[in-house]
Amino acid sequence: MKVACLTGGGDCPGLNAVIRGLVRTIHNAGGETIGLLEGWRGAIEGNFVQLNPMETDEILPMGGTILGSSRTNPYKDESLVEQVVKTFNELELDCLVAIGGDDTLGVASKLYSDHNLPTIGCPKTIDNDLSSTDFTFGFDTCLNTVMDAVDKLRTTAESHRRVIVVEVMGRHAGWITCFSGIACSADAIMVPEQEVDLNAVCELLKKRRENGKKYGIVMVSEGAVLKGEDLTTKDAELDEFGHVKLGGVGSRVAKMIEKKTGIETRDVTLGHLQRGGSPSAYDRVLGTRLGIHAGRLALNKDFGKMVALNGLHIVGVPLAEAVGTMRTLYPEFLDEASEFLR
Amino acid sequence: MKVACLTGGGDCPGLNAVIRGLVRTIHNAGGETIGLLEGWRGAIEGNFVQLNPMETDEILPMGGTILGSSRTNPYKDESLVEQVVKTFNELELDCLVAIGGDDTLGVASKLYSDHNLPTIGCPKTIDNDLSSTDFTFGFDTCLNTVMDAVDKLRTTAESHRRVIVVEVMGRHAGWITCFSGIACSADAIMVPEQEVDLNAVCELLKKRRENGKKYGIVMVSEGAVLKGEDLTTKDAELDEFGHVKLGGVGSRVAKMIEKKTGIETRDVTLGHLQRGGSPSAYDRVLGTRLGIHAGRLALNKDFGKMVALNGLHIVGVPLAEAVGTMRTLYPEFLDEASEFLR
Amino acid sequence: MKVACLTGGGDCPGLNAVIRGLVRTIHNAGGETIGLLEGWRGAIEGNFVQLNPMETDEILPMGGTILGSSRTNPYKDESLVEQVVKTFNELELDCLVAIGGDDTLGVASKLYSDHNLPTIGCPKTIDNDLSSTDFTFGFDTCLNTVMDAVDKLRTTAESHRRVIVVEVMGRHAGWITCFSGIACSADAIMVPEQEVDLNAVCELLKKRRENGKKYGIVMVSEGAVLKGEDLTTKDAELDEFGHVKLGGVGSRVAKMIEKKTGIETRDVTLGHLQRGGSPSAYDRVLGTRLGIHAGRLALNKDFGKMVALNGLHIVGVPLAEAVGTMRTLYPEFLDEASEFLR
Amino acid sequence: MKVACLTGGGDCPGLNAVIRGLVRTIHNAGGETIGLLEGWRGAIEGNFVQLNPMETDEILPMGGTILGSSRTNPYKDESLVEQVVKTFNELELDCLVAIGGDDTLGVASKLYSDHNLPTIGCPKTIDNDLSSTDFTFGFDTCLNTVMDAVDKLRTTAESHRRVIVVEVMGRHAGWITCFSGIACSADAIMVPEQEVDLNAVCELLKKRRENGKKYGIVMVSEGAVLKGEDLTTKDAELDEFGHVKLGGVGSRVAKMIEKKTGIETRDVTLGHLQRGGSPSAYDRVLGTRLGIHAGRLALNKDFGKMVALNGLHIVGVPLAEAVGTMRTLYPEFLDEASEFLR
Repeated sequence: MKVACLTGGGDCPGLNAVIRGLVRTIHNAGGETIGLLEGWRGAIEGNFVQLNPMETDEILPMGGTILGSSRTNPYKDESLVEQVVKTFNELELDCLVAIGGDDTLGVASKLYSDHNLPTIGCPKTIDNDLSSTDFTFGFDTCLNTVMDAVDKLRTTAESHRRVIVVEVMGRHAGWITCFSGIACSADAIMVPEQEVDLNAVCELLKKRRENGKKYGIVMVSEGAVLKGEDLTTKDAELDEFGHVKLGGVGSRVAKMIEKKTGIETRDVTLGHLQRGGSPSAYDRVLGTRLGIHAGRLALNKDFGKMVALNGLHIVGVPLAEAVGTMRTLYPEFLDEASEFLR
Repeated sequence: MKVACLTGGGDCPGLNAVIRGLVRTIHNAGGETIGLLEGWRGAIEGNFVQLNPMETDEILPMGGTILGSSRTNPYKDESLVEQVVKTFNELELDCLVAIGGDDTLGVASKLYSDHNLPTIGCPKTIDNDLSSTDFTFGFDTCLNTVMDAVDKLRTTAESHRRVIVVEVMGRHAGWITCFSGIACSADAIMVPEQEVDLNAVCELLKKRRENGKKYGIVMVSEGAVLKGEDLTTKDAELDEFGHVKLGGVGSRVAKMIEKKTGIETRDVTLGHLQRGGSPSAYDRVLGTRLGIHAGRLALNKDFGKMVALNGLHIVGVPLAEAVGTMRTLYPEFLDEASEFLR
Repeated sequence: MKVACLTGGGDCPGLNAVIRGLVRTIHNAGGETIGLLEGWRGAIEGNFVQLNPMETDEILPMGGTILGSSRTNPYKDESLVEQVVKTFNELELDCLVAIGGDDTLGVASKLYSDHNLPTIGCPKTIDNDLSSTDFTFGFDTCLNTVMDAVDKLRTTAESHRRVIVVEVMGRHAGWITCFSGIACSADAIMVPEQEVDLNAVCELLKKRRENGKKYGIVMVSEGAVLKGEDLTTKDAELDEFGHVKLGGVGSRVAKMIEKKTGIETRDVTLGHLQRGGSPSAYDRVLGTRLGIHAGRLALNKDFGKMVALNGLHIVGVPLAEAVGTMRTLYPEFLDEASEFLR
Repeated sequence: MKVACLTGGGDCPGLNAVIRGLVRTIHNAGGETIGLLEGWRGAIEGNFVQLNPMETDEILPMGGTILGSSRTNPYKDESLVEQVVKTFNELELDCLVAIGGDDTLGVASKLYSDHNLPTIGCPKTIDNDLSSTDFTFGFDTCLNTVMDAVDKLRTTAESHRRVIVVEVMGRHAGWITCFSGIACSADAIMVPEQEVDLNAVCELLKKRRENGKKYGIVMVSEGAVLKGEDLTTKDAELDEFGHVKLGGVGSRVAKMIEKKTGIETRDVTLGHLQRGGSPSAYDRVLGTRLGIHAGRLALNKDFGKMVALNGLHIVGVPLAEAVGTMRTLYPEFLDEASEFLR
């Protein structure tokens, strides 16, 4: 059996774990795996590398993806889709495993439903905002990166009796913000799912200061919305994908807090730091398991499916159902977090 | 409402997260929490400290337990049980939350069923070997500790073309060994649940060396059993709890491997390192959530229950059912791991 | 003997190590140490805490300063200086140890020369830009913080074939930028001491890309100056100290690089992250040794001195000479770094 | 110019930094570098790899050595030395840079003095026990590894009110033990340079316990000697180099402490963990600078020299003088450490 895999969209710790699991599983069954380079661009241009299990066995601790990535989407132009099909046939592939976010999986789903290409998906979103799976890989590593950063910021905040506003990823969903807010004993958590009452946050910060707590930590999603004031669209620029460019939310919140409370407030934007680094143990295990099961789905010719985590088990779910269903933060987590935010 | 909590048995990263979650939740509802010191010994002797939410808010990043721990078991002697009941009444407690392993929870369960004491349990086992809950806190931190250690050992193994045998915790169950084996791209994983075929392991190490892989990593549980030879009882001593003292399994396996393969082999026992350190993000969140829900069970007078993780949710399960049910490693994990062990 | 200590100016990992070393040394000689709070403000207002060696023994791993800090300078107003002298007498101090940067040490020096107050200094500058001492504590921890961050950024840069510009501390001197540039295998290092030839940097980035290196790392000091264009004063704001507010240098450089090379370029500002966190082994040892020797100078009544590192030894140097001598990066380091920048 | 390099003896974090610095510097001057494999064995057998600067640029964060290592010593047999000279001529080398400890440098020195081979040395000893240089690379990374391990052990020791004995490297010199003892706020430091008074240590542990400090940390060198009892030769075995095999010192000290004090005492041997892992910032910079200057010595045909650190500068010192001069711990460090050990 000859399988191809690709990694599309933003990078994420754990991608290499998935690739490694897939390559080893196919190899054990006597097959071979190739890696298309830079996401769907490789599928369009027929750019690939042979993936040798002895070499891929070494990539487990590596962040990022050895295949590179891009946001190229063949469905922008029907001729590009034809090229993908052509590549598929020329390379005599029996299966294509697409590891990526909603866009990448959407392409894999359409290729299956419209062109009968034997595709399999593996979900990737560092924001953990995909339905059909309990956790996505990369999320845990990201939380630890944020936590380590805030552990460092805490000492400097405390020494200077300051409030520090930490801006983290979370365009549409607050999973990273809420979970890291809990892990970082934040005084306030501002997520896209909930309008922020900045006055209430300022009151709490002042009250805690009066009670003796000399510093404060405020976690803010990129996509947070302030009651009566849309933080995200203020001074909006367009980014490289044509989306409203987020940024500066943390900075704006910090200025507002300092103004309202009189407490020295600084901000830090963790940015690209959150996507990088060696995957945590959780993500190495999850990525590996997903790769192994993607390989097993391929060997069983169980196409049009996506591997997902359900409790402790890895299962296969129909690609079409999984795609396009964004999952916002469950209210129960905000409710639990709220015990520390009053 | 006046709640007492205690931490019994071996320590574990995340204990302080549980205490913190409990204290804050009880405080938010107008109640108070005290901490009994050093496990059940504090309940017997009436030794406690007042737990102030502002202070406990700061303990989240701290490993270990601020209350100390011991393996004291009041059920060794009926008079000790009477003292526990006496302490309970003298301190006018409305509830006692016991955070601990099987022994600690067993005592809490009996106090509830036999003496009607309003107890609540929170499971603690770094080995992740308890039924009724998907994951226990401390397990993730431990996996990362092992993983970081093996990431360091890999570079020295590779430079010297050696095999390194890593002995990790796992007296009866191989959760730590198997999951860290996957996370560390081990060449062999030796767990108590499965008799080890040492000859097969040696063949694999030699074959991989011939194919160009210059080093090897072998993960071994304390409680691993070698086909035809019980590694654990060889040269057995008794430890402080009257159990057969495990130890030297890694060392014995290393000698056998070197003898059979001719490859230079060293061993490392991670020991107490695995119990220590600041909890990972996963454990800070899980510990906090368990503490919050233990508090909520107490406020709802929902006694004789234990908090547990089920998928993404924290639930309450009857203490009596949870106690005494040890959970060995699921075969599916060994099956997945096996893709890399052939 | 009764000694007081204070920590002034920006915080820095290792401050607690110095305090701990001082307290223990004075205690061993039968004396006592108090800690003035929040830098010179505590000396003005007479705000202090008793420092107990058993408690301070535990602060070694803690970043920041348990005494808090401020940029209060008593020499702004002669009446404030009088209050410092008054506090000194009321508290019956035999010595005051000032741990801080140039401003803090300058005050200590003047109090000694103008008012005969028995002061001793311990230099603190995370930028390592002080003469009279080989290395200052906090510098090593900061380098490791930057290095860890860039190790994470490297994986995401490589996956996306990008250049990442990292803005780090260094208002007047490029020690942090140059040393971290070396430790992070940067492709370009932009320090205040050397006008940056951005065209040359862009040519190098393009050349390396053509030769197969898919990503780039550029380290930039806050205070870097671009040939023909002063990066620092562009869009200048005033910060809380009345200085020209630096910021956005990294962002501006990133935009220029992307424009000139056509390579996708992103920027990250590490900001306050660099001041925080648990001190490295080097800084725990250096801070401890400096604290011990500051204590010994005090016990020997060797006032008006500052402790400093000379090779492997801690020595005492006259405060007056040490103050006001800023040390820019030695050309030899830029020369060594240049081997990797062509 | 054609240069060869090799890494001999035990591995150490920073070796790859040296190789990288050398390769890049020779390349910049129009030369080429090859790497002999596995220490002097490669020089005997003529086994080598071409070292390409673009590839070696990526090895900076990697622990260990990409060239492998061995303890092979050509001077065991004159015919082997002839083969080294033969390899040198066949490969048309202009210079050989030997990176290693005393044995490796000794060979390089003899080849220079006896056979006129143009050799250059770079000192490597993780124990930091070499004269002629202030610090050796790998030492700092090792201290941080020990420190991180003890930071983890501290939480578990405190929770269980125990003393933990940590056995670390240091066969003849106590640099690692003393410096990590300071960095880890140890209660006792047992180094080879100073006979240990175990009774005094036990008294101190008991006194501190009575004063409220619930745990203890004891750092012990492999080569520590107990007054009246030689810990090292007790139950001695021979190791792979024919030396008395050290080991179990920590375990023996732990048993003695528990017996004499009645305090529960455990031991941990960090072993091979100390040699591994990604080099710290300090070691990446030092290794890089040493490699660059070794390259410059070669380009200047300044043979029979060894690069060394003197204060902040890298200098060249005659190989013959540097070899064979082991440097034990300076008394000043034990004196400073003693402030915390009484």
